[in-house]
Amino acid sequence: MRTIWSLLIIGLLFNAGQLRCFADSGDSRGTSHTLRLMPWPSALKSGSGQLPIDTSFSVGIKTVGDTHLQKAVSIFLDDLRRHTGMLPLDFAITDPAKAQLVVSAERSSKPVQEVGEDESYTLEITSSGATLNAATTLGAMRGLQTFLQLVEITPKGFAVPPVSIQDQPRFPWRGLLIDSSRHFFPVDVIKRNLDGMAAVKMNVLHWHLSDYQGFRVESRRFPKLYEKGSDGLYYTQEQLRDVIQYARDRGIRIVPEFDMPGHSTSWFVGYPDLASGPGPYSIERKWGVFDPAMDPTRESTYKFLDTFIGEMAALFPDQFFHIGGDEVNGKQWDRNPKIQEFMRGHGLKNNGDLQAYFNQKIQKIVAKHGKTMEGWDEILRPDLPKSIVIQSWRGPQSLADAARQGYRGLLSSGYYLDLMSPTSQHYQVDPFADGAASLSDAEKQRVLGGEACMWAEWVSPENIDSRIWPRTAAIAERLWSPQNVTDVSSMYERLDEISVWLDAYGLTHNTNYDVMLKRLAGSDNASALRTLANVVEPVKGYSREALAKGEPGSLMPLNQVVDAAHPESVEARRFSALVNAFVSGQIKPGSEAQIRAMLSKWRDNDGKLRPLMEKSALLQDVAPLSQDLASLAAAGLQALDYLASGDKAPQDWKTQQISFVQQIFLPKAQLLLMVAGPVQRLIQASAGETPTDLPLPKKATE
Amino acid sequence: MRTIWSLLIIGLLFNAGQLRCFADSGDSRGTSHTLRLMPWPSALKSGSGQLPIDTSFSVGIKTVGDTHLQKAVSIFLDDLRRHTGMLPLDFAITDPAKAQLVVSAERSSKPVQEVGEDESYTLEITSSGATLNAATTLGAMRGLQTFLQLVEITPKGFAVPPVSIQDQPRFPWRGLLIDSSRHFFPVDVIKRNLDGMAAVKMNVLHWHLSDYQGFRVESRRFPKLYEKGSDGLYYTQEQLRDVIQYARDRGIRIVPEFDMPGHSTSWFVGYPDLASGPGPYSIERKWGVFDPAMDPTRESTYKFLDTFIGEMAALFPDQFFHIGGDEVNGKQWDRNPKIQEFMRGHGLKNNGDLQAYFNQKIQKIVAKHGKTMEGWDEILRPDLPKSIVIQSWRGPQSLADAARQGYRGLLSSGYYLDLMSPTSQHYQVDPFADGAASLSDAEKQRVLGGEACMWAEWVSPENIDSRIWPRTAAIAERLWSPQNVTDVSSMYERLDEISVWLDAYGLTHNTNYDVMLKRLAGSDNASALRTLANVVEPVKGYSREALAKGEPGSLMPLNQVVDAAHPESVEARRFSALVNAFVSGQIKPGSEAQIRAMLSKWRDNDGKLRPLMEKSALLQDVAPLSQDLASLAAAGLQALDYLASGDKAPQDWKTQQISFVQQIFLPKAQLLLMVAGPVQRLIQASAGETPTDLPLPKKATE
Repeated sequence: MRTIWSLLIIGLLFNAGQLRCFADSGDSRGTSHTLRLMPWPSALKSGSGQLPIDTSFSVGIKTVGDTHLQKAVSIFLDDLRRHTGMLPLDFAITDPAKAQLVVSAERSSKPVQEVGEDESYTLEITSSGATLNAATTLGAMRGLQTFLQLVEITPKGFAVPPVSIQDQPRFPWRGLLIDSSRHFFPVDVIKRNLDGMAAVKMNVLHWHLSDYQGFRVESRRFPKLYEKGSDGLYYTQEQLRDVIQYARDRGIRIVPEFDMPGHSTSWFVGYPDLASGPGPYSIERKWGVFDPAMDPTRESTYKFLDTFIGEMAALFPDQFFHIGGDEVNGKQWDRNPKIQEFMRGHGLKNNGDLQAYFNQKIQKIVAKHGKTMEGWDEILRPDLPKSIVIQSWRGPQSLADAARQGYRGLLSSGYYLDLMSPTSQHYQVDPFADGAASLSDAEKQRVLGGEACMWAEWVSPENIDSRIWPRTAAIAERLWSPQNVTDVSSMYERLDEISVWLDAYGLTHNTNYDVMLKRLAGSDNASALRTLANVVEPVKGYSREALAKGEPGSLMPLNQVVDAAHPESVEARRFSALVNAFVSGQIKPGSEAQIRAMLSKWRDNDGKLRPLMEKSALLQDVAPLSQDLASLAAAGLQALDYLASGDKAPQDWKTQQISFVQQIFLPKAQLLLMVAGPVQRLIQASAGETPTDLPLPKKATE
Repeated sequence: MRTIWSLLIIGLLFNAGQLRCFADSGDSRGTSHTLRLMPWPSALKSGSGQLPIDTSFSVGIKTVGDTHLQKAVSIFLDDLRRHTGMLPLDFAITDPAKAQLVVSAERSSKPVQEVGEDESYTLEITSSGATLNAATTLGAMRGLQTFLQLVEITPKGFAVPPVSIQDQPRFPWRGLLIDSSRHFFPVDVIKRNLDGMAAVKMNVLHWHLSDYQGFRVESRRFPKLYEKGSDGLYYTQEQLRDVIQYARDRGIRIVPEFDMPGHSTSWFVGYPDLASGPGPYSIERKWGVFDPAMDPTRESTYKFLDTFIGEMAALFPDQFFHIGGDEVNGKQWDRNPKIQEFMRGHGLKNNGDLQAYFNQKIQKIVAKHGKTMEGWDEILRPDLPKSIVIQSWRGPQSLADAARQGYRGLLSSGYYLDLMSPTSQHYQVDPFADGAASLSDAEKQRVLGGEACMWAEWVSPENIDSRIWPRTAAIAERLWSPQNVTDVSSMYERLDEISVWLDAYGLTHNTNYDVMLKRLAGSDNASALRTLANVVEPVKGYSREALAKGEPGSLMPLNQVVDAAHPESVEARRFSALVNAFVSGQIKPGSEAQIRAMLSKWRDNDGKLRPLMEKSALLQDVAPLSQDLASLAAAGLQALDYLASGDKAPQDWKTQQISFVQQIFLPKAQLLLMVAGPVQRLIQASAGETPTDLPLPKKATE
């Protein structure tokens, strides 16, 4: 589900002092050190000392004959190698009596992983050894990830701190949707993201495999689906089996989505008879909502889908089968006299009724092939059985309504990664917010969890990781950790570390940034460009579509500064926190100098960036932004001078500067200069006013 | 061939003014811009204007039915996407009449790629279109790489400049050896390096697949080879076929090496009867030359090798089969009475004779399976047929001797990447140097080319790319470009750009540097560590083995600063060039300030690095280096003050400082502080002396 999601703007957090620091609660280690754990566990106690992780480290498995657990420990050891730089031969699986870490699981995970399997575990680490006990193999996998996150370099070498952890997930369904239709992502991209998901204890990859712009799966029954509908960019069945196994080995289910009856143009290129309007069809190149939809009135449609769903049900072992079902605009149905006649004949009053008719038939087909149907909000109609699962792009209220009617549901509203929202905003979205808070316990059970959604209009294999990570780690925490784990400053502190830690999996959210900037600059020295890019963010919500030059769609190159820029600027966030502390009078030694140094660097950057901008067509649209940054920094420095002098800044100057800052905060090159807000606060403070937040401009959020 | 290679020390280049600037010769574009081409072509003329590369760019193929060429163009388009950030649908293969780039090849490359196939091509680019003509598919592949390197971002978008290029390789064999035995490199590591090789027109991957420390190939005839000899780290036959095809699609042959009769302990773990001494054997964990060798006196050895070579000859399609043949220390033979008796009975006077006996029998087996035998220097004995190929680790003289005797040969001496030599040094090694210069033309024909060698004692999948790249690009130029292309400063200018350009292939020589430094620091902010790491280099030659703490071998983690540090410090090279220009009186505006800024940064870095060093055991051994850098920088700043004041520095001070700098240049933590040399020159200049080079300390080069 893609569009028309009204963006909830939450201002940048202002008073860090309000935030409760929970991260060290129960920590008796006597350090100010926050453990790099995300998601944060249900209960944690710390001890003193440390358990060394050196080349003699070994793991023992107490449970006999659990091949999933054997595999999980072997993957854990590989991961431990990645996080320490030790080599394949260094760690071993040994006799539990001799091992430093002893793992056991009471029961094996099901052959096909199921939703709701027990994922709880306890992890006890002392300076002489560690024990991980879990109810199931899945719980052991989660506990192994916790152990990995605890590994840190210390003055004595790699080690884990003594802790006692009791942990289990809040929700059984913690997913990430990847849209491989709008842009195609090769298998290695999917695999490294599965690694990242496993690292933050997510357990569902919802794989959006067909849409207007591409059909991405090899079908042996209907080969023209991928031959004609994919531009040659699709997954073979062999690749899919490999990815499914890769995910299974990491405790991740894969739920395929084949969107129907709308979002389906790519099907019709090879099979125009499925459509409700006359062909021929070609693969859609633009973004948006389009007319083509399957013809729900012809038996041949159901015969086709029966065969197709049967083939896919055999390929994808998961219990759930997602049929999409969103955003049918009904125009093809309105225009087709035969369909109109059918509706009259069957007493279907409107297109909603017709889609419900379609969904009922599809639900029976899906059930016939042994699967449970899942779909977006729109499929919810009382005539469908209670077994189906509703995925909500509309919000917690719609999720709560479904739960009251007896349907299981998932929250995705608020977790759309393509909208470029700050992590703090996603972090505050809770499946039990709003209407859901008053659900009965039985109704609450029906809220299975949620899914972060990586819709792919504006992402390519080059930058998808930077849209997913690190923000998804915070969503994973929301869905795993207790509801009261909400401290935003602790979240960011851990997020910054987790982000770097995820580099070890070959995720490119950090490493590819410089590569893209150097290409934009056409130079091996792109540091001036980095200075600018570090403080901008892509516009939010769906505004990029309106602001993009040319016709937004799959033929538009994603090689601009906006494609390289991180969704959330770490440097702007840190600068903002510095300024907040400074203007609220919490002056630490050196903080004024630090603010001044940052502003001076920005003021002087335009001159350095100019030679690069002159050389590169791809940088020409950021030239005004670069000048804005210089002007903004100059205004900030002047405000700082007023503050240092003790004289209040004149009202005129302040008024003029504030209006100037607001002007600067308008989007340029589809980017926002994120240090505008803190500079405004400096200006306000210099005039003796209470600093206020600078709201995102409307044009950048619609 | 691994050891006892005496390192030729070539001082850092001092007088950049001596270097002829050839890169723009024949360039009538009227710009000072050097084209980012490596290897540099045989003949190049530039025009004016540019040919745009935008989303309407397309390629036409004139030659019909050449599937290799079809594939090559499709790979070229993928690569073009990687280098521009344009997306899979943007470029197309079209009718040659409509295409911007028209490609043709007179003949198809052979089904199995052969050594010496014509790789020449001509490339004509005007502002209205481009034509690439080649004698064979291989030549077209090389020309496509040239086209790719010409793509640059301009003020009007991506474009290629008008050029007229005639090009062909100087040598038909331009290889890279990767040793997958001492450390194992997964398929993705091999593939991205094949991409890099293709980008610089290399055409042979020499794959060293067995040695003391591991047997890395699945054998179906002798499964215990990999079951017992690989720690589970081996390539399946399916993977090998996939890699061979991947290489073939890029015009790269794969020559497998199975080292025999020495360097073979890993074979004996599963098959102890092959050895000359009693078993049991275990996989060797240390580095060095060891006693175990195959028993050349038993017919069962040849029966085994006949079957094994037959299996491998079918798996690897290339004409050449490398049997290693180096460094048999003969101790097992000396100790075995049966072998001694056999030698007496067969009139074999010494172990060299015995190995020659072995080689003759092996050569017949290799020939029987349709292959040509290749081996290291040691196999050269007049009793072997002239068809064999000798790979020289001893030097151009030994290569010339072989050529005079009628043998074809390859140079690897001087191209050992594991010795951490500067690129300039490799670049100056020429197969026709020394004795080879006086060869007759017919003899010269026998010198097929050379191979860069990536021996893997000190490399892991994490850092292998940074040992291979970018230095190998310069070796590729040596083997492809005309002999008179020798300008070191032009080479470095282009190398710095090619290095960044290679990032697009997913090579991690640049991107993994920060990842490793952050892990070493245990922090998401490792900038102080980067400041230090940027100016150090690993010790040279084989000295790391002597200087390493603990027992050097495959169980030693490669996660130290020395493993992250680049073999050649770009920053030290640039600082050195700045200082050279400065002390020779070529003062450009700002250069003194630049030198001062760099020295100040280094002087102040120790205080910033200290908190990181205190936290991390892996940084404790660089603490003295960090202090040295501060002291060195302080001395440099003082010298700069003397130079600025116009007063000569006192002799006493100078003498003391020089001795201090020499002390500082001794290796610490297996690293060298590469800015010591330029600081010495500043000190000498400040005392009115002629600056001299600071030779590498003996301990760091042995």
